[in-house]
Amino acid sequence: GESEKRITDIRENQTQKAGLENKELGDISTENGSKPKQKSNTNSFENLRVIGQVSKLYILAERGEDLVLIDQHAAHERILYEQVLKMKKSRVQELITPVTIDLTPKEKVLMEEYIPHLEECGFGISEFGDNTYVVTFIPEVFGRLEDPEIIHDVVSDLLASGKVKKDTGISERVCKTIACRAAIKGGAACSPKQMEELIEQLKKAENPYSCPHGRPTVITFTKGELDRMFARIQ
Amino acid sequence: GESEKRITDIRENQTQKAGLENKELGDISTENGSKPKQKSNTNSFENLRVIGQVSKLYILAERGEDLVLIDQHAAHERILYEQVLKMKKSRVQELITPVTIDLTPKEKVLMEEYIPHLEECGFGISEFGDNTYVVTFIPEVFGRLEDPEIIHDVVSDLLASGKVKKDTGISERVCKTIACRAAIKGGAACSPKQMEELIEQLKKAENPYSCPHGRPTVITFTKGELDRMFARIQ
Repeated sequence: GESEKRITDIRENQTQKAGLENKELGDISTENGSKPKQKSNTNSFENLRVIGQVSKLYILAERGEDLVLIDQHAAHERILYEQVLKMKKSRVQELITPVTIDLTPKEKVLMEEYIPHLEECGFGISEFGDNTYVVTFIPEVFGRLEDPEIIHDVVSDLLASGKVKKDTGISERVCKTIACRAAIKGGAACSPKQMEELIEQLKKAENPYSCPHGRPTVITFTKGELDRMFARIQ
Repeated sequence: GESEKRITDIRENQTQKAGLENKELGDISTENGSKPKQKSNTNSFENLRVIGQVSKLYILAERGEDLVLIDQHAAHERILYEQVLKMKKSRVQELITPVTIDLTPKEKVLMEEYIPHLEECGFGISEFGDNTYVVTFIPEVFGRLEDPEIIHDVVSDLLASGKVKKDTGISERVCKTIACRAAIKGGAACSPKQMEELIEQLKKAENPYSCPHGRPTVITFTKGELDRMFARIQ
């Protein structure tokens, strides 16, 4: 009874904190805002010691005596999203083998809308005969491209999401889609060095606490919370 | 809102599971019982991969895609308690330098009650002049004794806990006190090998899910629970 009550309290307390963090962060429409105001969060990524990876999806780290969980995909998505937003066209890589994309006439109409924004973000993309496009450059954030499938994925994600009314909406959607497809996937094993680098980059992000879709990147269990879960303290 | 609600649900669900486990285990008075009946728990310690240690207190491990936290002190306490209960006098070590203990006349009365039980558990202890006792043997569970202070601690823990009515109560208390003082402390850095051995031993325990005082030794976060905390799934 006592023990159950205690764990419930901790979990509820955690939830309230998570909720507060989300509110502080705001949703995507307040992107480009200032850093979170909570003082306690300011140094959340300082002195993090990587412990390891669980489920090939979450990075476990220690900050002081607290346990910190980081969603590797969400964190990387946030990092890449901010990079794409800031740099746009500045960093591109040429594809050794250009990738062709075939579209239906309906998709082609939508594609024409997306092309200027894709180009602004570092894609080199042009018409190549009837309903076919060829991609010759891609943003550098994709790293060495092992699988041309990713280009098809970006395009199909965009086409699947349909029409956007405002022009800024299209640009934002393109940046998010690039970040999402370029980010390290859940299910990818990370080396300690890779995890440390990810945290290092996340630390520098403007809004490190949520991915571009608004999902949390970090959840912290304080030592006190762990101690209460294990009934070490009342 | 949505995200908060989701985390609350997970935490409540976790709590219910923890409560259920505690009920299955029963309290210390049902010690020596059979293994937990829940099938899902039967192999909780199989195929655990140690990830690391947080706060020098909790072992982090992965089972399948789940995150498992183990309280190193509580787990070791459970292991040693069962060893002491089973072996009692059978395994002892001689002290190179006997340890003397001075008591007040009041404490001496209580000590006389404890001595047969301390001896049954592997202590060699005898009167050595007015209100002084000398300890020449200790249970093997203490390992190589680096600090004779631990013997004083066991005795003072027992004396501080006062009179016990039933004879079985004294014996149980002695076993618990030995286990508690001999167990690895919170705050001790553990090597991966030490953590693996601890889990290996815990796996063989009759009641691996709680320490002799009834506190949990293990808390599991399933991948689904982690995914919901990070709003990966609804």
